[in-house]
Amino acid sequence: MSKNLTKRSEDYSKWYNELVVKADLAENSGVRGCMVIKPYGYAIWEKMQAALDAMFKETGHENAYFPLFIPKSYLSKEASHVEGFAKECAVVTHYRLKMAEDGSGIIVDPDAKLEEELIVRPTSETIIWDTYRRWIQSYRDLPILINQWANVVRWEMRTRLFLRTSEFLWQEGHTAHATEKEAVAEAEQMMNIYAEFAENHMAVPVIKGLKTETERFAGAIETYCIEALMQDGKALQAGTSHFLGQNFAKAFDVKFTSKEGKQELVWATSWGVSTRLMGALVMTHSDDKGLVLPPKLAPIQVVIVPIYKGDEQLDAISERIAPLLKELRAKGVSVKYDNRDTYKPGFKFAEYELKGVPIRLAIGQRDMDNGTFEVARRDTLEKETVQADEIVAKIEFLLEDIQKNIFQKASDYRENHITEANNYEEFKDILKNKGGFISAHWDGTPETEERIKNETKATIRCIPIDVKLEDGVCILTGKPSKNRVLFAKAY
Amino acid sequence: MSKNLTKRSEDYSKWYNELVVKADLAENSGVRGCMVIKPYGYAIWEKMQAALDAMFKETGHENAYFPLFIPKSYLSKEASHVEGFAKECAVVTHYRLKMAEDGSGIIVDPDAKLEEELIVRPTSETIIWDTYRRWIQSYRDLPILINQWANVVRWEMRTRLFLRTSEFLWQEGHTAHATEKEAVAEAEQMMNIYAEFAENHMAVPVIKGLKTETERFAGAIETYCIEALMQDGKALQAGTSHFLGQNFAKAFDVKFTSKEGKQELVWATSWGVSTRLMGALVMTHSDDKGLVLPPKLAPIQVVIVPIYKGDEQLDAISERIAPLLKELRAKGVSVKYDNRDTYKPGFKFAEYELKGVPIRLAIGQRDMDNGTFEVARRDTLEKETVQADEIVAKIEFLLEDIQKNIFQKASDYRENHITEANNYEEFKDILKNKGGFISAHWDGTPETEERIKNETKATIRCIPIDVKLEDGVCILTGKPSKNRVLFAKAY
Repeated sequence: MSKNLTKRSEDYSKWYNELVVKADLAENSGVRGCMVIKPYGYAIWEKMQAALDAMFKETGHENAYFPLFIPKSYLSKEASHVEGFAKECAVVTHYRLKMAEDGSGIIVDPDAKLEEELIVRPTSETIIWDTYRRWIQSYRDLPILINQWANVVRWEMRTRLFLRTSEFLWQEGHTAHATEKEAVAEAEQMMNIYAEFAENHMAVPVIKGLKTETERFAGAIETYCIEALMQDGKALQAGTSHFLGQNFAKAFDVKFTSKEGKQELVWATSWGVSTRLMGALVMTHSDDKGLVLPPKLAPIQVVIVPIYKGDEQLDAISERIAPLLKELRAKGVSVKYDNRDTYKPGFKFAEYELKGVPIRLAIGQRDMDNGTFEVARRDTLEKETVQADEIVAKIEFLLEDIQKNIFQKASDYRENHITEANNYEEFKDILKNKGGFISAHWDGTPETEERIKNETKATIRCIPIDVKLEDGVCILTGKPSKNRVLFAKAY
Repeated sequence: MSKNLTKRSEDYSKWYNELVVKADLAENSGVRGCMVIKPYGYAIWEKMQAALDAMFKETGHENAYFPLFIPKSYLSKEASHVEGFAKECAVVTHYRLKMAEDGSGIIVDPDAKLEEELIVRPTSETIIWDTYRRWIQSYRDLPILINQWANVVRWEMRTRLFLRTSEFLWQEGHTAHATEKEAVAEAEQMMNIYAEFAENHMAVPVIKGLKTETERFAGAIETYCIEALMQDGKALQAGTSHFLGQNFAKAFDVKFTSKEGKQELVWATSWGVSTRLMGALVMTHSDDKGLVLPPKLAPIQVVIVPIYKGDEQLDAISERIAPLLKELRAKGVSVKYDNRDTYKPGFKFAEYELKGVPIRLAIGQRDMDNGTFEVARRDTLEKETVQADEIVAKIEFLLEDIQKNIFQKASDYRENHITEANNYEEFKDILKNKGGFISAHWDGTPETEERIKNETKATIRCIPIDVKLEDGVCILTGKPSKNRVLFAKAY
C-alpha cells in the first residue's frame, strides 16, 4: 500500500495529495473545488473540534448558528470587506427548478428569480452584525462572546484538499465589546488559544504575530495570526484573530448606551480556524510511509494485530487480548483490535503506518509463549518487546512520549529554518536553497512588500509578537527599519 | 417578563412563536425564512446532537462530510427524488460579484456564470451515492454506515421558527448494504433509535409507524417515522428513516461484486432528524409561564438565586453556596449561580421559569439561619424547604423525577388523544372538537387519502408498527380495510 506513495524528496506536493487520499482523509468530489471529508479524516476533525470547543467554552464563549445566506446588500455595507470577498462568491439567484417545456430535462425556473441575490457566506461578519444590532442596546448587553461551527464558501480557482477548497468547514468567533481595550484583549486571547491548541494538541509549533496591512483580513484594523512551517520550508497560516475596531458597528449601526448614558459604537473581533488545519497536521509530521498523527488527535491510538495460523490460535490470542482492550478503553485509550482474516499482518502493518496510528502492538505464538507483545511506535518506527504486565504503562508512556517527540522534532526543524538575511542577495539565496522563515528588515511599505512578493514569491508572514527593536535597513530599498519581520513562501 | 406571554388557550400558535423568541431559543433573521439559533437554543441542540451522535456511534456509524452543492444533473438522476425537491431549491448560478460600471453598487458579474447550476443540498442522497460509486467495488466494502451533521436548504414559502425554515440543521445518515434484508433492518434500527432518543432524552412519547405512499420520502420504497403529539392536538413528524431499495444505486450505477462473484446493485437507507425537534420539545412540555425542559437536555439544570440586601449578606450566601456548586459540578450537574446585582430575585425567578430551568434554589437570610434552601421544580411549580445536608440528594432525585414526570404527563395526554372513529361524521367531529390522533379504517388508496386531506386537513400520520389486523370499512368510501391507520392534523 504505502510503497505507492511518492517520496517527499521527489515531489512534496504530489506526496501530500496522494497521502490525503490514500490515508482516507478526504477526496475530491464531483463538485468542482469541493471535497468529501472521509470518516477517518472527519474523526480527526471531530477531535480538533472537541478540543477547541472546550477551550472556547472555558473562556466564556457560547455557540450559536447564523444563516448560510447573506443578502448581497449586507456584504456591500463594509467597503473593504466586500472588496475582499466579491471576487469569490457563490451567488444564489433562483429558488426553484422545473421541467423544461420541450421535455429536455430540468431547468432553472426563470419565474423563480430572487428579488435580491443571496451570497453563500464566505464569512459571517455582515449577517452577524446585522443581528447584533437587535441584541445590543445597553452596556449590560456586552460583551457578546459567540462562536459558530459552520461551512463557508469561497470560490477558489485552484484548489487542494484541505489547504484550499471552495467549501470548507470552520469555526468563526464573533465578539462585541464596550471598549477598544477589551476587544484587543479578546483578539489576543484567541490568538493565544489557537497557538496553545496547535502546539499542545496538533504538536505543531507556531509563531504568533501580526499581519501587515496587505495581508490583513478584509475589514480588520489588526490581524493576529499563528504561522506554522511545513517540511518543504513553506509557511502555513494556521489561524487568525481579527481586531475589527468599530468598522462593522459603523456599517450596521450597532450602538450601545454606556454606563454614563452616552450612545457609543460597539467594538468587535472575529477569529477562525478551519479544516485547513488538517493540511497543516499532515504536512508537519508525516513521512514517506504515510501519516504520523499526534496521539491526542489520533482516531485510533493503539492498534493490535494478531499473527496467527488458523482459528484456534486466533481464539487464544483474542482471549489473551480481551482484558487488555477493556483496561485500555477504561483508561480512555482508543484501541482497535484488527482480527480481520481477509488481510495478512504485513498488509495491516503497512495500512496502519499509512494511517499514522501512533502505537502498534503485534502478538504471535512466540509472544503468547513468552507473555510479551511486540510494540512499534509510528513516529520513530522503533520496535521493542514488552512484557504483558508492563504493556499498559508502556502504552501510557508512549502516548505522551510520541506527542512530545513529534512536537520537538517539528520545533527543531522550525528553529533550524528561521534564518536572518541582511541583504536582498542573501534573502534570495536562502529562499532558493534552504526555505523556511527569513527574518529580515523591511521598510514598512506595501509597495516594497509587493515588489518582494512579485520578485521572489515570498510574503511577509507576520511581525512576531515578541519582535525585538533593532535598527537596520530594508533588504530591498535600504530605507531604515526598526525591527525584522518574517518572510516565507506560503501555502 | 413571562406576563407578556400569550396563553396557550388563547392562541397556541402565537404562544409558540412568542415563547421561542422570548426564551432566547431563536429568532428570524434578515434573510427570508432563515433563522438565527441563539446561544440558549443552540445549547439545547448541542445536547441533542451529543446524545444522538453517541447512539449512532454505538451502532457502528461514522461521521463524514459531503459537499454543500449538488450539480443540477445529479438531482435529475432519480426521477421521483427530483420531483420531490425541484420546487424548493436554492440555485447557485454565478460565482462572482463586481462593481457596476455605472457606480450604482455591487452586482452579480454576468461573466461569471456557472456552466452547470449548483443546488444547495436539500438532502444529500445524490451527491453521496455519486461518491459511494467510487467507494464500493466488492462485498468487502459493505456495509457503509455513514452519518453527516449538516445544514440543508428547502425554499419554504411559509416558515415558522424550528418547525419549517428555509435553512435548517440536521443529521442525515446514508448507508449502503449488500442485501435487502440488512438495509430494511438498518432502517428499522434507526427508527427505533430515534424513538428511544425522543422518549428517553426529550421526554416526548412517539408512535412508530410506516408512511403511506403519498407521504413517503421522494425516492424511498418505505418510510419509517416517529410521530409525536403536541398540546394543541396536532401531530408532528419527529424523525424519518427510509428504506431506499436500489433506487439510488440504479440512478448512480453503484454495483458490487458479491461473494459469489456476481455484479449486484447496492441496497440503501437514509434517515434524519433536524432542528424541528426543537419545536417538538417546546410544544410538548411548555406552559403559559414558559419553557419546560427535560433535565437531560436543559443547558442549565439547576439555578441558584440568592436573596439578599447588601454585599455582606451576598458574600455570606456565596460562601455557603461555594461547596454546593463544586459538589454538583463534580457530579456533572449543570448549575448556575445567578448573583447578578442588576436584577431582583422576582425578575430572575420569572426569567428562569420562562427559560425552563428544571430546578430553582433560592436562599435568603432565613434559609441561612435555618440551614435550608427553598427548592422549586419547574414542571409542577411546587416549592419546598430542604435541609442543606439533603440538598444534593434532593437535586439528584428531582432531575430524574422531572424527566419521568414530564414524559408521563405527555404520555397521558397522548393516550387520551388517540380516538377511534368508525365513520366519517365521527371522524370530523373528533377532529373538530378534540383533535389528536384518530384511529380509523382507510381503503388504502391515495385518492381517498387525498380527499380526506382536502376536506378535513387531516393526513395519515402513519400505519403504526404494532397495528392489529381488524376487518373494517373505510370511513370515506366504505370499501373493506384490514387495519386502522392514524390520522391527524399535523405540523
